[in-house]
This record gives sequence, structure tokens and C-alpha cells, in this order.
Amino acid sequence: MFFEDFEVGFQFTTPTRSLSEAEIMEYARVYDPQPFHIDPGAAARSIYGGIIASGLQTCAVAFAQTLKANVLNESSLGSPGMDKIRWLKPVRPGDEIGVTGTVREVTPSATRPRGRVVIDYEVTNQAGEVVLSYSITHMQRRRSEK
Amino acid sequence: MFFEDFEVGFQFTTPTRSLSEAEIMEYARVYDPQPFHIDPGAAARSIYGGIIASGLQTCAVAFAQTLKANVLNESSLGSPGMDKIRWLKPVRPGDEIGVTGTVREVTPSATRPRGRVVIDYEVTNQAGEVVLSYSITHMQRRRSEK
Repeated sequence: MFFEDFEVGFQFTTPTRSLSEAEIMEYARVYDPQPFHIDPGAAARSIYGGIIASGLQTCAVAFAQTLKANVLNESSLGSPGMDKIRWLKPVRPGDEIGVTGTVREVTPSATRPRGRVVIDYEVTNQAGEVVLSYSITHMQRRRSEK
Repeated sequence: MFFEDFEVGFQFTTPTRSLSEAEIMEYARVYDPQPFHIDPGAAARSIYGGIIASGLQTCAVAFAQTLKANVLNESSLGSPGMDKIRWLKPVRPGDEIGVTGTVREVTPSATRPRGRVVIDYEVTNQAGEVVLSYSITHMQRRRSEK
């Protein structure tokens, strides 16, 4: 899809995937080494009752799944920003998460063959609970820009 | 530091660090496999003119550096949300980035021995340019909550 193909209200879903405890701990040792992400014993004694994924890893996995839906890929020029990230429920090892995206705004550039597409995302687990929500402003090019 | 130690206006800085091209590509192959993050040739032909870090990797590295400042760690209960992420400049291999955090709001819980600390963050590169800004709401416990 190119910029001109995005319409307000367009909705898409992604394939689901899970994170193993090893994947959660491996990411967190590098990027978010807090006890409830990297230490099963300390995590069990924490308010979370066990290992949970770093919130930014959940965002990253959700974005990876979003690319698998192949909606943005062909015309993506990156993103200037992301808003209202809300970590609503913990994501635990084995939780199966998937993403729904809904286009909220489409704004053409006044000067260049591209535009901004604001998409609201909801990430749900295997119980249908929303574990994470956010919106991303995507910069997408038009067909005419090679 | 515990919840009661945070005051509006308190500011801290983190150690700096850089990402190698290999680290950028390794992260992006898993979480953000877009050509300007994983393919040096395609990146050179893109609007970025070369490999740039995935925006969520920059956020993750900035958060890792924030933990190294050891301000949040002792009393962290995680985060309910993050706002106004703005990727203002690309982060390229070898760029040396560091983080400044400034406490904007401190709100005690009405019912539990903890509270919310909203911190505005700026991530700057070796040229002193702000490459990324965002705010995080941190849930921090009081000394009394073990």
C-alpha cells in the first residue's frame, strides 16, 4: 500500500506470536535489566508474581507483527512519533499476542509526494484482553515517489 | 531513590553509549526489518542515506542508560505508560547518545504506598542535538513498601 491507499477507518490485523521466558530475559538483560524481567525468583516475589516482558519489547514485537501484515512496508519512510503508549496488562511468557491497527488520520504533505498516516493500535492476548495500546504516525510515500 | 525522594524539577543525566552497525542490524532483523535498518545498500539509497537505528531500539537503549543512572531502580514498580515519543533526528552507527531526565509531576497514590513520577526525557547525540524526546510515567514505591 502507498500513501494514497490509506483511508480513515481502514483496519487490519496481524499474525499472533508469543515470547518465551528466554526471549524476554535475553532482551531485558540488554535493554531493561529490572528484576521482574530478568530474575525469576525476584519476579515471583514482585507485584507481578513472575517474569513479565519489558514494555518496550512488547511494543517492538507488536511492531514486528505489524510489518508481517505487509500494510506499511512498501511505502514506509519511517515514523516521526508515537503517542499514548499504555501498558494495560503484563505480557507473560507464552502469551499469544496479536495487533489490530485502525487508521485514524491521513494528512498529505503540502510539499512532497508523501503524507502522514496516524494509526491507533491495540495489542491483545489469547484471552482477548487488550494488553497494550498506542498510536504511531507513519510517514508513507506516494506511488509517484520512487 | 524511593517515591518520596522525587521532586518536581529534579534532573539527572546518564552515561552515554553508541550502537554499532552490527547491533542496529541485529535488533532490526528481529523487531523492525525495514530496508533502512537492515540493508546497507538499500539504506544508502533511502531518504536516510545509510543505516539508522530502529526508533524503538533508540528508546530501549535510552532506557537502559537511564537504569545505569540508578535513579529509578531501587523503587521501580514498572510503568503504566509513555507519551509523546518524537524521533527528531536519525541515530546512526557510532553516534554517542546520552539521556537527560527531568521530573515533571509527582502524584502519590491515594490508597497504596507508592505513586506516579512523570519524567520528561531528552536523548542527545555527540553534537548536542536532541535526537529523541518522550515522557514516561514511572510507578515508584515508598520506603515503607517492601
